[in-house]
Order: sequence, then C-alpha cells, then structure tokens
Amino acid sequence: MLERMLAGFIREGRLTVRTAGGRTLRFGAPAPGVADVAIRFRDRASFLRVALRPMLHFGEAYMNGDLVLEEGRLADLFELCGRNLANRARSRSGPFRRGFRALARRLQQHNPIAASRRNVAHHYDLSETLFRLFLDSDLNYSCAYFARPDLSLEEAQRAKQRHIAAKLLLAPGQRVLDIGSGWGSLALALAGMEKVSVDGVTLSTEQHARANARAAAAGLADRVRFRLADYREVTGTYDRIVSVGMFEHVGSPQYETFFATLRRLLAPDGVALIHSIGRMDPPGLTDPWTRKYIFPGGYIPALSEVLPVVERAGFWATDIEILRLHYAETLRHWRERFLAKKNVIRDIYDERFCRMWEFYLAGSEMGFRHGGLMVFQLQLARRVDTVPLTRDYVREAESALPA
Amino acid sequence: MLERMLAGFIREGRLTVRTAGGRTLRFGAPAPGVADVAIRFRDRASFLRVALRPMLHFGEAYMNGDLVLEEGRLADLFELCGRNLANRARSRSGPFRRGFRALARRLQQHNPIAASRRNVAHHYDLSETLFRLFLDSDLNYSCAYFARPDLSLEEAQRAKQRHIAAKLLLAPGQRVLDIGSGWGSLALALAGMEKVSVDGVTLSTEQHARANARAAAAGLADRVRFRLADYREVTGTYDRIVSVGMFEHVGSPQYETFFATLRRLLAPDGVALIHSIGRMDPPGLTDPWTRKYIFPGGYIPALSEVLPVVERAGFWATDIEILRLHYAETLRHWRERFLAKKNVIRDIYDERFCRMWEFYLAGSEMGFRHGGLMVFQLQLARRVDTVPLTRDYVREAESALPA
Repeated sequence: MLERMLAGFIREGRLTVRTAGGRTLRFGAPAPGVADVAIRFRDRASFLRVALRPMLHFGEAYMNGDLVLEEGRLADLFELCGRNLANRARSRSGPFRRGFRALARRLQQHNPIAASRRNVAHHYDLSETLFRLFLDSDLNYSCAYFARPDLSLEEAQRAKQRHIAAKLLLAPGQRVLDIGSGWGSLALALAGMEKVSVDGVTLSTEQHARANARAAAAGLADRVRFRLADYREVTGTYDRIVSVGMFEHVGSPQYETFFATLRRLLAPDGVALIHSIGRMDPPGLTDPWTRKYIFPGGYIPALSEVLPVVERAGFWATDIEILRLHYAETLRHWRERFLAKKNVIRDIYDERFCRMWEFYLAGSEMGFRHGGLMVFQLQLARRVDTVPLTRDYVREAESALPA
Repeated sequence: MLERMLAGFIREGRLTVRTAGGRTLRFGAPAPGVADVAIRFRDRASFLRVALRPMLHFGEAYMNGDLVLEEGRLADLFELCGRNLANRARSRSGPFRRGFRALARRLQQHNPIAASRRNVAHHYDLSETLFRLFLDSDLNYSCAYFARPDLSLEEAQRAKQRHIAAKLLLAPGQRVLDIGSGWGSLALALAGMEKVSVDGVTLSTEQHARANARAAAAGLADRVRFRLADYREVTGTYDRIVSVGMFEHVGSPQYETFFATLRRLLAPDGVALIHSIGRMDPPGLTDPWTRKYIFPGGYIPALSEVLPVVERAGFWATDIEILRLHYAETLRHWRERFLAKKNVIRDIYDERFCRMWEFYLAGSEMGFRHGGLMVFQLQLARRVDTVPLTRDYVREAESALPA
C-alpha cells in the first residue's frame, strides 16, 4: 500500500526504500535542488505501522530508530516530500469530510484553562537550557522577520520586534498587555523602545520565573511585570494588546472567547496585534504526530476561521499581513543550530529526544516552504480612525525605533 | 413608532421633525461637529411609509420631495444618523436571522450573465456627461487613495493607480486582464506606466465604446483593448489580473465561480489584485433603497465571506490591505462637485434624479465614515514565492513609477 502511494506521489527527486525483508524500492527520478534520499526500515512491523498511518507513525519510526536514513538528511527527505506535495493536485473536501473535521477540532481543542496549563507545560516547561542551545540569544521562540534576506537570526528577531512595535503605534505612558509572553523577550523589547508599561501573561512556570528575573536584571521591573495567568483571567483595560505565537494554542472552539476577551480588555482607542501561524488551505486538522509529541491542544487556523469571529466581536481588522517563508528561514536557522549542538542535547536528554526535535523542526520547515503554512499579523482596532489611513507609518516607525 | 425609535436612537446632535399634522418633535441635544437638522414631512402618508420601512422609504421620500430639509443639508442629516449609529450597541444576530439573510442574499444576487448585463446597464450606461460632472478628469469611478491627507481628488485617484500598479509588480511584456474596466482609466494608466498589454472587459456598452476611443486617442490601441464581455466569458492566461470596484456586483452566490475563473485565467507565477468595498460587520444585506435605485444585484461582502472561497480556490492571499475612510473622502469630493453642478444636472435629468444621487452619495459617505464600510485590496498569488517577502516593495515601486 505504501509502495503504491509513494509511486504515485514521488515525481521530483529520488527516494530509495529498503524494507526489512531486503527488498529495495525506488521512486521518482533525480531532480535539481533535491538530494537523493535512502531510508531503511528496521523491521517489518515498523514498515507496516508507517504504511497504515503515516502521519503519526512516520515521525515515531524516526524517533525510535525504526526508520534509518542511509543517504541524505532528514531535512532532505522533507524537502523531497514537500516538493511533491506542492505539485500534487489539491483534493477537494466534501461536506462529510468538513463535518468530521469540525467535530474533531472541537474534541481535540476543547482547551479549558486547566487543560491549557497542561498543554503549555508539555512544551514550554522544557528546560531553558534546551532553547538556549538553538534560539537567538534573546530567546524569541516565534517566527523572525527577515526585513532583508541577508539578516542573521538575531537581527531578524530584532526586526520582528520592531515591525510589531511599529504596528502597535506605541507612545509613552501606554499600558500594554502581552498574551503569551514566553521568556519576556518582546515585552522587554517594547519597554526598551518606548516608555510604556507592559503586563505579560504566560501559563509556563519556567518561562514566568525567568521573564521576571530578566525584567529585574534589565532594570525594567517597575514597568514590566509577568504573571502566571491564563488570558481569560486578565482584568482591566489596555491601550495596546499583543500576542505572538500564542493564538496557535487557543483552539478554534475558544476563538469566540479569545476575541471577546480582547474586546473586553482593549481601550476604545486601542490597537491589538495578533501574530500567529496560519494555513492558506481551508480549515483542517493538526497532524496526529505533532498533536501527540509537540503541541497537544494546538491548532493552526485558516484566516477564514478567524475573520468571522473578529467581525462578530465588533473589531475592525485594520491590516492583515501574510508573512510567507519567514518561518521556514527561522526554522532552518534553529535546525542548523540544534544539529550543531546535538551532542550536548543528547547528553542532557537522549537520542530519541534529539530525533523527535529534529523531526519537529525539519517537518515544520517543510510545512512553511511547501505545505501552505504562513504567519499572519492581524491588526485590530475598535474605531475606524485609530490606525493611520495608509500603511506608510509602519516603515517610518521602524526606521525611527532604536536598533 | 418612528418617534419612539428616534427618541432612543438620537443622542448626539439635534433633529427636529415637523409632521404634516403640524406637530414638532425634537430629538437629541446639540453636539460639537454635528449641525442641527430639521425635516418636514409633506403629508401623513409619507411619514407613515418612512416609519414603517425607513431603509427603503426614507430615500424615496427625499427623492420625491415628500421629506423636506428645513434646516441643515442632507449630508448633515446623514452625519447625525451616522454618529448615533456608531454609538449604538451592536445587535447580536441569532442563527435564524443569519439563515434568513443567507437565503435573501441567494435570491437577490443570483446574477447569471444576462441579469448582470441588465444590472450593469442600470447604473453604468448613464450618460458619461453625468459622471464627467463630478468624477476626476480621468473618470475613476472607485475609491481614491489619499496617500497624504492634502491630496486633491485628481492626485488621490492617480495615487490609487500607482498603489495598485506597485502591488501588481508590473514588468515589461506582461499580459494584464482588467475585470470591470469602466471608462478604461486604470488599464490605460497601467499601460502608460509599464510596457504591458492590457485586456479590459466591461458589461457596459457606454463604457466599452468610450474606453476603446480613449485607447486610440492615447496611441495605446495596440496594447490596450476593451471587450464587451462578462468575466466568465474570458479565456486565455494572464500574468496579472486586476479588478477595481467590480467585485461589489458579483454577488455572494457567484464567489466560487469568480475565484475559480481567476484561478483558471491566472498564470502559475501570476499576481491578482481585487479592490472592492467590504464591510467590517458580519455578513448582512444590501439596503433595499440602494438595491432598488442604484445597484440592483450588488452586494458588499465581509472578508469572512471572501476568504473561505479564496482558500478553496487554492490561492495564497498574499496581502490584505483595509482602506478605511478613503472612500468617505472620495465621496465627499464627488458630492461637493455634484452639488456645485446641480443646476446643469437638473437640466439634463430632473430634480428627482438629483435628489436620488445626492442621497446615494451622502448616504454612501456616511456608510464609510460611521457605518462600518471599508475598501479592501486583496492580493492573490498561486505560488508562495511570487510576491516579495516583505511589503517594502510597494512604497519603493510607487516612488519609482511615473507621477
């Protein structure tokens, strides 16, 4: 079955599969820019598992060493799959499939506060040591903004912070809320660029402690505070609300609550900016491997799922930027740094953990390069005239902000 | 009934209503920036009609002279209504109301090709003489782009053409399709900015003849051709597709067809730009007066109605700009020019026609200033990497294009 599927699928690039029984199967043909890849299955059972449910068991087989790369790297295998995925005719989804997906989304992403805490702990309470080994030095764990193609990862993360600060139209004295504040990078950056006060909320105990320590070390503890809280627990009013790389964890059944909360927290002349991964395809599902190992409860929305809720909440969507390929570049940097430090990480965790993360980083990069993933920056306001009438202010503010 | 409604509605500004029976009703209180307005109803029947179905009969009463302005101008009355509309709490729409609206949209906007021809003739086959009296000299009958607030209407229409040309990433030798080409202004402007060939299609016989005459006069007839055709009848492949102020006439039941047609006509490395009026509110209906007198078959979509179709058609939405208030300014210019030439227009048509158009222009301006209307520019591509990765190219191209 896998054989028939692969024969129909692989057209660009060459894939060699060696089964445990000693057979060698070849698919596709050499193509420029795609490295030849050869994989071997350790036993018949693992081959069958991948054949039956590839979206889950392909990743598991790689993690467990049941699938071994004999030629090429994992990123090459993903590039090969990605290229052919992009070539494939799009499958039309009927109403039954759409109904099933809607139900599955509801079950998988129910995400009441307690479950959200567990889901966040699963990923973000991993040791900071790990993230320090492959993120930029400022610990930005989200898509960078390559304002120019030759920027380093550090520069592109800083460019992202400036891009966001510009779109937030920061001014001295404003109160800013950062939903999903991580290790505090963005909140501290915004407070460093302009005399604003920032409240950050996170559900990760590891990140929360670290972020407050960073605020103290930067001498910004009077203006930047981090709380261990769910966004649904925040009260008060804010002039600016920003949320970077957190909306992916909200889950579509909670979108009404999310935007109603934003509406409750945002001042009448306020501006909000949501920076999130999105898909250019119609609504779908998170793949089962990612859901199990990386982001339980997470979901990547299509814009068509977000905008109805924005409209019902009474917001103006004042600008929607679609950042394509920036996350692919970010992930390439992360993967290369991760692999360069693989020995250190294996000593802290183990080989299986390293393979799991390599699979996650390489697979995500493929998703952004060939799989229809993007990042959208959705700017919201309550009034028609809060945001300038042309977008020229973004670049002007970027130039004016401290480098 | 109207009395009770108005007493609850008018909070900002003062409205005086004199009934045919001689009663004087006062609503609201004076407010800065809102002129006092007094209206009088000629007879009891017209007062009752407006009370029963204000969305249709308010406009008719004004056209027919059954509603007379005794103090203030029509634009002041709309400003007064608009301000209070914006203050009003948003009414939540239940599933029954949503279902009814969806059905009504389907019936009102069925728009097969023959009906589209009739609908277009209703508005766009009005004498060019009329439009010459209030549009800019280049005859751009769509929202201008006020790149700076102090631009004249002529300058802002030219700025719109340059903004669109920049987003289309024009290059010599490209084939461009202009869907809804009007009097040919944009097609001729694009061909003047870059050595591209442009095919324009329109359903208006008046506009079609005039546009071809302009192409000949400009010495561009070898590169710019206008056809009297429906967009669904176009064949071939285009590098660039642009559509300005036409999507409002497509009607939501035809969106699948519209984007499937775009997908069929756009080259794999092509770019399309749709410039259309949109609403920030959830999907609704065209008001009955506008549907009857101005734009039969027309519909102003919410982005939430457009994006699902874009996704299903397999397009990347590469950029979504939301132009707020630009059309309010455009309409203000048009209305002032129209009123300055009212005597001339009355001599060609009649008083009732003048009032109908004044009502349309002032009402539309109110819609963009206070009623949640906007213009969106939706840029589409088939490939992830056709459009540059940052939006900086837009301003750079605008500066480089001939003024």
